[in-house]
This record gives sequence, structure tokens and C-alpha cells, in this order.
Amino acid sequence: MTDPFLQAAIDEAIKGRDEGGIPIGSVLVIDDQIVGRGHNRRIQSGSPVLHAEMDALENAGRLTAADYAKSTLYSTLSPCDMCSGAALLYRIPKIVVGENVTFQGPESYVLGRGIDLQILADQTCIELMRAFIAEHPELWNEDIGV
Amino acid sequence: MTDPFLQAAIDEAIKGRDEGGIPIGSVLVIDDQIVGRGHNRRIQSGSPVLHAEMDALENAGRLTAADYAKSTLYSTLSPCDMCSGAALLYRIPKIVVGENVTFQGPESYVLGRGIDLQILADQTCIELMRAFIAEHPELWNEDIGV
Repeated sequence: MTDPFLQAAIDEAIKGRDEGGIPIGSVLVIDDQIVGRGHNRRIQSGSPVLHAEMDALENAGRLTAADYAKSTLYSTLSPCDMCSGAALLYRIPKIVVGENVTFQGPESYVLGRGIDLQILADQTCIELMRAFIAEHPELWNEDIGV
Repeated sequence: MTDPFLQAAIDEAIKGRDEGGIPIGSVLVIDDQIVGRGHNRRIQSGSPVLHAEMDALENAGRLTAADYAKSTLYSTLSPCDMCSGAALLYRIPKIVVGENVTFQGPESYVLGRGIDLQILADQTCIELMRAFIAEHPELWNEDIGV
């Protein structure tokens, strides 16, 4: 059975896909409660900064360092440099990643900075990305700066 | 004389301060033209992700890798983990920083990843931050995850 928080991130990814967007979702969890949900907004809002993780952090709103210290960030995809940097800035201690097969962020750096990074190989997450990349390679490249 | 693009970033920082916000400003420059301006929006928009550099990138809108490859990011303050990560994601080749006296981001990492990082010691940038930090230490700490 899929972890319910990863499932919530997948639900966000599917919501993004159904809006015509890049199918990546994320949730921020504190004390077993989802405090922010988000999905990639490049297409929908013309945003280069609202990757899924950033959107989840933005929707969680202003939090204290004590809040972040108890938090876990879930993402359907391995966080890129920007999203990894956001987790480092706010000292989020744990990140759970749906998959890193279709894209891999700076995982060793993130681990080296002390974040507990758990990588799954969730088939739904992989399939969502594979389908999108096959259909819209140019949009995907734009999203990862290639 | 202050570099005109750094001056534009300082103007953004002052605009932020005059709105009651954290006085950090940024501009993104391509081919000697400012394509995005921004300032920290934590207070004004309740945003944990719109640091000045992120706001400038957001206001520049969706760009191609070829655009970013010609760009320089100016910031009044040494970019934090998140903003440095955004520059790394989009392979922005050069960052000009007003000062790194009141805060220092992951500069060696950014240099090691190949970004040309130029650090100035602009007195206006330093004074803007010193005055804000003295008045609102708790807001500043929140902004840097402390």
C-alpha cells in the first residue's frame, strides 16, 4: 500500500496533469498532518519558481524554524537544485521521494548536508513522468533548465 | 559609481523596505536589459518562497535555457540555499552580490558548481540589512530558517 502522504503528493501530481501541467506533486507534513499541498505550476501559472515542492511550501505559508524542524517534505520526483535548496534553507530534516528514475536532483549534496532523503521507486510516479516527458519533451526540458 | 543593475536591485530593496518588508532586492539581466525585478515578499505576501531572487525570476516569467545562459542575476544580498539552487537549476552563469557581510549563502558550493559569483561590499546594501535586522531580528531569522 502506498504511504498516504506520498499518495496525497501523487493526487496533486494527477491534479496538475489534469490541468495540462507537469505531473509532479508534493505535500509538507508536520505531526502527521498535511500543512501544505502543491503541484508544478509552470504551465498553469507561467511560473518558473513554483515547482511542486515550492508550491507546497508556499501553500503552507509562513512557518517558524520549530515547525520546519518537525516537518517532512514528500515529492513525487527527486527534488531539483532549487527545491533541494528550499529544504536546506528551512532545515527540513526529511524528504520522501516517489522516484528518481526520470530525473535526479543533487541527492548526494542533500544527504551530505544532513537531510534524511528516502527514495522510493513508485511505479505510478514513474509512469506519470514517463508519459508526460514522451508527450512534451520541450516543456520538461524547460522545467529543468535544459 | 554603483553598477546600474546593482542599483536597480537596491531600488527594489528600498521599495520592499518602504512596504514594511525585508529589504532585499534582485534583478535578472539578459543582454544588458533587465528582464525581471523583484524583492523579498515574506511580509507583504506571506510568502516563504518569494525571496528577492525568486521574485525576480518569477517576474521574468518562463524563459528558455538559451535565455538563462546569457543571464546575470543581481542580488543585494548573498543568495541563500534556495535562491542559489534556483540559479543552479537554470544554469545562470553569473551572480553579482551586493554584500555578504550580514548573511552568507552557500558560496563555495555555488562557485564549485561553476557559477561566476562576484561579491561586492556595497555599503548601502549592508546598511539596509543592518537596520532591518536590528529592528526585526525575529522576522529576519524566520526568513533564513533560524
